Amino acid sequence: MTVVEDGSSSSRLTAILQGDQAELRGSVLDLLASDPFANAPDDVTAYRDWVRDRIVDLANAGYGSVGYPVEAGGQDDMRAFVTIFETLAYFDLSVVIKFGVQFGLFGGSIHQLGSERHHKELLPAIGEAKLLGCFAMSELGHGSNVRDLRTTATYDPDRAEFVIHTPDDNARKEWIGNAARHGQLATVFAQLIVKDTSYGVHAFTVPIRTDSGQPAKGVTLQDCGHKMGLNGIDNGRIWFDHVRVPVTALLDRFASIDESGEYTSPIASDGKRFFTMLGTLVGGRISVACAGLSATKTALTIAIRYSSVRRQFGPKGSKEVSLLTYRTQQRRLLPRLAVAYGLHFALHKLADDYAANKVGENLQEIEVQAAALKSFGTWHTTATIQECREACGGQGYLSINRFDTIKADTDVFATFEGDNTVLMLQVAKGLLSSYRQQFHDMNWLMVARFVADRAASSIRDRNPIAARNTSPSHLRSAEFQHGAMDYREQSLLGSLAQRLKARIDGGMDSFEAVVECQDHMVSLADAHAKRLVLEQFIAIESRIEEPEVNQLTALRQLCGLHFLESDRAWFLEQNYIEGAKSKAIRTEVNQLCAEIRPSAVGLVDAFDIPDTILRAPIGLSG
Amino acid sequence: MTVVEDGSSSSRLTAILQGDQAELRGSVLDLLASDPFANAPDDVTAYRDWVRDRIVDLANAGYGSVGYPVEAGGQDDMRAFVTIFETLAYFDLSVVIKFGVQFGLFGGSIHQLGSERHHKELLPAIGEAKLLGCFAMSELGHGSNVRDLRTTATYDPDRAEFVIHTPDDNARKEWIGNAARHGQLATVFAQLIVKDTSYGVHAFTVPIRTDSGQPAKGVTLQDCGHKMGLNGIDNGRIWFDHVRVPVTALLDRFASIDESGEYTSPIASDGKRFFTMLGTLVGGRISVACAGLSATKTALTIAIRYSSVRRQFGPKGSKEVSLLTYRTQQRRLLPRLAVAYGLHFALHKLADDYAANKVGENLQEIEVQAAALKSFGTWHTTATIQECREACGGQGYLSINRFDTIKADTDVFATFEGDNTVLMLQVAKGLLSSYRQQFHDMNWLMVARFVADRAASSIRDRNPIAARNTSPSHLRSAEFQHGAMDYREQSLLGSLAQRLKARIDGGMDSFEAVVECQDHMVSLADAHAKRLVLEQFIAIESRIEEPEVNQLTALRQLCGLHFLESDRAWFLEQNYIEGAKSKAIRTEVNQLCAEIRPSAVGLVDAFDIPDTILRAPIGLSG
Repeated sequence: MTVVEDGSSSSRLTAILQGDQAELRGSVLDLLASDPFANAPDDVTAYRDWVRDRIVDLANAGYGSVGYPVEAGGQDDMRAFVTIFETLAYFDLSVVIKFGVQFGLFGGSIHQLGSERHHKELLPAIGEAKLLGCFAMSELGHGSNVRDLRTTATYDPDRAEFVIHTPDDNARKEWIGNAARHGQLATVFAQLIVKDTSYGVHAFTVPIRTDSGQPAKGVTLQDCGHKMGLNGIDNGRIWFDHVRVPVTALLDRFASIDESGEYTSPIASDGKRFFTMLGTLVGGRISVACAGLSATKTALTIAIRYSSVRRQFGPKGSKEVSLLTYRTQQRRLLPRLAVAYGLHFALHKLADDYAANKVGENLQEIEVQAAALKSFGTWHTTATIQECREACGGQGYLSINRFDTIKADTDVFATFEGDNTVLMLQVAKGLLSSYRQQFHDMNWLMVARFVADRAASSIRDRNPIAARNTSPSHLRSAEFQHGAMDYREQSLLGSLAQRLKARIDGGMDSFEAVVECQDHMVSLADAHAKRLVLEQFIAIESRIEEPEVNQLTALRQLCGLHFLESDRAWFLEQNYIEGAKSKAIRTEVNQLCAEIRPSAVGLVDAFDIPDTILRAPIGLSG
Repeated sequence: MTVVEDGSSSSRLTAILQGDQAELRGSVLDLLASDPFANAPDDVTAYRDWVRDRIVDLANAGYGSVGYPVEAGGQDDMRAFVTIFETLAYFDLSVVIKFGVQFGLFGGSIHQLGSERHHKELLPAIGEAKLLGCFAMSELGHGSNVRDLRTTATYDPDRAEFVIHTPDDNARKEWIGNAARHGQLATVFAQLIVKDTSYGVHAFTVPIRTDSGQPAKGVTLQDCGHKMGLNGIDNGRIWFDHVRVPVTALLDRFASIDESGEYTSPIASDGKRFFTMLGTLVGGRISVACAGLSATKTALTIAIRYSSVRRQFGPKGSKEVSLLTYRTQQRRLLPRLAVAYGLHFALHKLADDYAANKVGENLQEIEVQAAALKSFGTWHTTATIQECREACGGQGYLSINRFDTIKADTDVFATFEGDNTVLMLQVAKGLLSSYRQQFHDMNWLMVARFVADRAASSIRDRNPIAARNTSPSHLRSAEFQHGAMDYREQSLLGSLAQRLKARIDGGMDSFEAVVECQDHMVSLADAHAKRLVLEQFIAIESRIEEPEVNQLTALRQLCGLHFLESDRAWFLEQNYIEGAKSKAIRTEVNQLCAEIRPSAVGLVDAFDIPDTILRAPIGLSG
């Protein structure tokens, strides 16, 4: 099979990629092409103010409030929020992250943790960027383990106020976007103490600057200093010295102080309440993964276009050939292109599901998927930009060709909105708890049937004939690829559950047991993410009945075989495939790369990044 | 086995690492700690001049000329040159690369391609940094394929001059260090044309600036612009418009124009002469790999020290534990630490061999090793700095903690001094040609014995009992590990030779055959590099009879098992190991990480990077 190259197929692919978000995406791109968005200044202070001004422009265009309730001036459309976010990420990553800090994290915390009173009072000004604010969760001593944050909010019943306090320097708020320069109000996460009882982490609105821009009384602010990237964001540190705020400062959707000064919550368990509150981070994770994917697309567009015109070496006496002629170059770029398509479909599906859901309802599956795709996706971003940079040689090292800034700006995506490794471990825990729940909900007959089914499918999946089948049509089939990815995920989940159980039954502390199985857990989360990506890719492929399905099919085949090749050691260990099949997978990846090569430029053209936004001279279209 | 932790062992390890270069290394570090080296300016122009001034300081300390002949003011000590280079790389990478451009590439080209006349005339001033210059090889259109450079040097017999000319913009010299601001003279690589006959690429000294700093007549200079890193280097572009230089400008060690205006060369073949000239790049490749390794050590020192004190999460009700307690964190950092030790030993051995050799003599094996270790080593640098950055979370993203600059500055190491992928392919070609030579030199009886030997060793290596042996002592043994790495290299070499032969015998163009086997070639070069690293690690280990061998042995075991784990899919495909053994390797890597963890800080302390040079607040000692 060869991939049809067709002038019009790029634009049909673009339509498939953009779906019902095409119009909004176009409007955002139009705004980004307008004069105020040209020429960001170099000086850090000027750049920060310039970024702030762009946030105001975006708010004026109505983009800031799209996710907020209609009654608070919004459009109740989280799907649109993600689209705006991912579109901005083609342009300037400080702008998109500041957009996320202001409207997503800060505004989102008011929206999702506050009650109607907070919505009415604050959301309109936030959505219009008239009130700039912070999401003050991380502390110097606690970035990942936010449950053990040490800032306190002690209730003073006499004055019906909370006293917000930083007990020591390790508890200072750290990395807080908008804190160093522009933020006026902060959503502060602190341990709530009422009558000497601690109720765990809650969120409070605390003014950090006066109208004249000075730090509020009792508040100390400091700049975090120069960073690897994202220097258009004013990340800062915050210390609170017994800062008093009224009882209404508590964002009280999930907990409040009643008139008699007692703590009440609709969620009895502190743990469950805490995780419900953390659910506010899910939208951010999906958005960050989408922004990372936009940066990936930028990098792939530049590198693939350049590789198709840059010539070096060739057969004796003939013209030099393009870099993309080389198997090494195809291998660097094309499997990553295929995964980028798969991630696009998986993230858009997740964004749809997330937007259709309601926060506070059963978000667990979405949370697990968001954590998995955020980690897998942003690691793919980091590695792909690196590969693209190197694939463009010295040209890739020149700042004008943009790998410089997109690499530096996105590097922190692996760290913020949940450290990728920590998230991968959470994914495994989430999958384990669903797995246990599955058994818990079954009677003995169902368990027996379940076990028998799994055994049967295991025999089917691992049968020696399939393990030896090296025919291209089998290797490329969605059925084989999905079956293998699913088998890997289920096997890793089952064996992880057994390993943990054996350790805990043997008397090992559960923390230690988890530490011993962490590499297994990361493999499971990786298998989960890949299965999600491939599954969505197959779903899209099966829905399209047009000529360009030809290209998408080849890309899906490459995506699936690339995953299988990456994990072939595991499949060989399990005797799921034999050595000959493993080698055949490698051959088929090579073959698919060669087949896709002629349409590679069309496939990045389909990402539809305008030259005015792409800017890299070596990567412009045509 | 557990690793002994011993206060004094770090310093013994330091002594082993530094060997006979300790004193020189100490002197360089002392100079770097002196006042002029403090506080590089931020402004690019000021920074470039500051870097230039440091080059002058280094020259004044006698470091610039160490590699040059004694009669030209040097010490004829290339080993010392590599030590100075690798020590400078702990400090500021623009300084070390400018040092390399001036004394290594520019001065080195005069030294290695010129004759005594050039040495006497130029090397003293170059070594003292009174004459700053360029190594003008790369062109916009030709970076990797330097054989097809298009700048011309046409001999004019009437005036006994060469006319240096840039035929079009694609042939402009690109990326030339020292060109944009400081260089006065350039070694220009151009196609030599004598009486309408082209003799291939030769090197010529061409003045590019007048004494007053203006571009020389017929020379156009331009700044390459801002780069991802190394902005202390003034990389520039050069165009020549019929620039005339005297016949003495030809660096004439390997070719000259005689008195009757005829071309003569002691090397008859154009191809062989070209590759002999390229031998000048070998020293640069070794030096760059060593500099990359210094940056790797800096990153590992910061990340491992920080991971040992940073605490996050912990068992219920207990104190939080250090990040290095986590298997995920150990897995990120400790195998990379083990490989860094192995690379250190392998690169130092290579530097010794290189320094003991004489250019122009049989350099082929050293060239292949240099290409392999440069590529493998600098990719290890890039990936390790990335891993360390992420392992330090948000702190790793702050510029003050230095991952920012060491990542950006070293990123181009994968590209310059030979693109890593191109070098890997050259390694495979070099190994293939030795392999063919081996057969060529044998009579039929020797070939038969050779084939029988290989078959016997293949049976021994692949015997089913060994394939199933999962005992820790076997897995950790130098014999098994080296045998496996050697087997992989030899097998890949043999099968590559067969695959290429089958294609060429079948009528395929040799260029196309190579393209089809490029992924195989890269695997072979990777196997070669790993075998070299492990082999030198084992050699050092076997030579030491002191308690700290305990630590080195554990590190060597981890290095070897990490290589085997990375390539376990290949060994499984070959039935060299069975699934159970593959799993046992994973378990043993985990076990070794846990064993090494208590001495991890001591192992980075042994790199002996002074705090004043390390500078990252989260990575300081104690």
